[in-house]
Amino acid sequence: MIKLRVELGDRSYPILVGEGLLARAGPILRNLGFRTPPTVVTNNHILRLHGQALLPSLKESFGPSAIIRIGDGERFKNQVSLTRIYDGLLRSRADRGSWILAFGGGVVGDTAGFAAATYMRGIQFVSVPTTLLAQVDSSVGGKVGINLPGGKNLIGAFHQPRAVLSDTATLRSLPARELAAGLYEVVKCGAIRSRALLRYLEKNLAAILSCEVPALAHVIAEAVRIKAAVVESDEREGNARMILNFGHTVGHALEAATEYRRFKHGEAVAWGMIAAARLGFELGMLCHNEAERLIQLIHRIERLPSLHGVPAAGAWHALRQDKKSRDGKLRFVLLRGIGHPEIVDDLDHNLVRRFIFDFLGTGDGLR
Amino acid sequence: MIKLRVELGDRSYPILVGEGLLARAGPILRNLGFRTPPTVVTNNHILRLHGQALLPSLKESFGPSAIIRIGDGERFKNQVSLTRIYDGLLRSRADRGSWILAFGGGVVGDTAGFAAATYMRGIQFVSVPTTLLAQVDSSVGGKVGINLPGGKNLIGAFHQPRAVLSDTATLRSLPARELAAGLYEVVKCGAIRSRALLRYLEKNLAAILSCEVPALAHVIAEAVRIKAAVVESDEREGNARMILNFGHTVGHALEAATEYRRFKHGEAVAWGMIAAARLGFELGMLCHNEAERLIQLIHRIERLPSLHGVPAAGAWHALRQDKKSRDGKLRFVLLRGIGHPEIVDDLDHNLVRRFIFDFLGTGDGLR
Repeated sequence: MIKLRVELGDRSYPILVGEGLLARAGPILRNLGFRTPPTVVTNNHILRLHGQALLPSLKESFGPSAIIRIGDGERFKNQVSLTRIYDGLLRSRADRGSWILAFGGGVVGDTAGFAAATYMRGIQFVSVPTTLLAQVDSSVGGKVGINLPGGKNLIGAFHQPRAVLSDTATLRSLPARELAAGLYEVVKCGAIRSRALLRYLEKNLAAILSCEVPALAHVIAEAVRIKAAVVESDEREGNARMILNFGHTVGHALEAATEYRRFKHGEAVAWGMIAAARLGFELGMLCHNEAERLIQLIHRIERLPSLHGVPAAGAWHALRQDKKSRDGKLRFVLLRGIGHPEIVDDLDHNLVRRFIFDFLGTGDGLR
Repeated sequence: MIKLRVELGDRSYPILVGEGLLARAGPILRNLGFRTPPTVVTNNHILRLHGQALLPSLKESFGPSAIIRIGDGERFKNQVSLTRIYDGLLRSRADRGSWILAFGGGVVGDTAGFAAATYMRGIQFVSVPTTLLAQVDSSVGGKVGINLPGGKNLIGAFHQPRAVLSDTATLRSLPARELAAGLYEVVKCGAIRSRALLRYLEKNLAAILSCEVPALAHVIAEAVRIKAAVVESDEREGNARMILNFGHTVGHALEAATEYRRFKHGEAVAWGMIAAARLGFELGMLCHNEAERLIQLIHRIERLPSLHGVPAAGAWHALRQDKKSRDGKLRFVLLRGIGHPEIVDDLDHNLVRRFIFDFLGTGDGLR
């Protein structure tokens, strides 16, 4: 088991990564000071796959937990699921001393975390992420929230978990596309902070993709360590934290332009990183070699859904509406070499527009 | 104009109290650094009464503001109004640099403040409270939130405003009952922290009730100063902030037992303070004289809705569900003399039960 710690003063918390943690969750959480049973927020799919690993351990340590099930999938990260969680908390007479255990992927974690952030102005929650993407990304950093019909993650808060338990065993049941979607975020962490991690990925990709524990646990822990360090320096998203958005500007635009149907979030970010690498190369910030290496690594992970037919006008429109933009400025995270991200918000609108149209026409070729 | 400041590090903000502030809001807010027009959240009643005072000033300083209207009354402090605010923000393309101006009483302030706390994980807001209760209580301290069908203020956050502008002129249009409801919170501030304020209220009650500016502005500023000092010492409700709940344990129980129909919140708190005075007297914490003086002052303000027929069993049930309770302990704020509140959470359940049944039978008599 690898034990990391996110240092945020009185909101500090441990992140545990290892094989078989679900079955030890009860004693681990008792050790962290919990004494009453949590309200478990999850979905039926996760319960079926992993409930038998987690629930008996919780029961033995705390007695029976109330379970709230929400729908499975991004479209359930909404106000309906949120209300369902609130209702469940009320029904089980949760008070300010109660706590939530979010058991599932990013949708469960974000929605349950936001419920915890806002129920009685904030109760504690523990995250038990069951997808690679949630383990390396959404469970670290305290961003919680839901989507509105008008856009993703528009409603949210910063609310740190009391602990994160990432069991590598849960990843073995992930479809290949889901595993890849998480790995792209690991690539992102390497791209912005660690050549060593990128090199490790290049060398050990086969072992990671077949979920061999030491390799998988290593890259999860490295990605978490990198993200945690960024979050520690900037909990509430000033500029430092912004570098975590590498690949996200174009990524979000691709998701929006295809109405969130064609790409998984990680896949859109993968294309977004390819676009950022290419844009960085065209602007003379990133050399051909480094851009090429990053792009090749991304393509080796899994075949990405094609960009063919993504409406460029729609992507451009979405880009201009991006949540990261302020006062109408377009904001990109670009690399001045691997490991050296820069926030660039003075790009000419016409240049970016031309780049987007070009990128969606030609894909990832570097000229 | 009286200028106070709530000191909370980088979340510090000024509270301005004075006559005619609405008409000067634009320049005041420009001085505080705002440059773009706010999204104004309000209701039709307030717009009709005070829109002509505020809006031209905002327009002159910032250009036209988007206006979002929600329903008027406690039952509109809910998810429907919240969604309406989110939709309005999206429609006016509000981004992270946008800000909300909450223009109205506590319902507007709490709901708009919660929307600001959660839209894009938090945007700035300014509070322009138009009721005495909002000016002395809900606009200070950063508690924002909405009700659920299952209970009041169950969903919320801590989100400090960037400024509060309290115009005493708006109070002249308040019904007497509304003015009284706010004054009870002023009495509360005196009871927990300032004999001088209680004495001032006793001496100047007539001037205050007829909204004479110096007297009214003085008690608003004193109440704000007291509440701000408590909040500064304890922003997120540890024990120090708990003393602001003087009168609220029984107050909330009375509201719940009458389904929030008989008492305004301030009136319920007034009865709650009477109950707390009586309980403090019975437990030997408060002398007869001080209890009597507090009770008499409360009764001089306005005739309180009768306790007659309030179901004691319902009040007792609600008391045990109180949000302030933890692990099933009943928690009261009682006075060990005026200005010296204590948190008491080891009272015998039977004693409290008997007290509640007795209180609802006999009202405010000290035995």
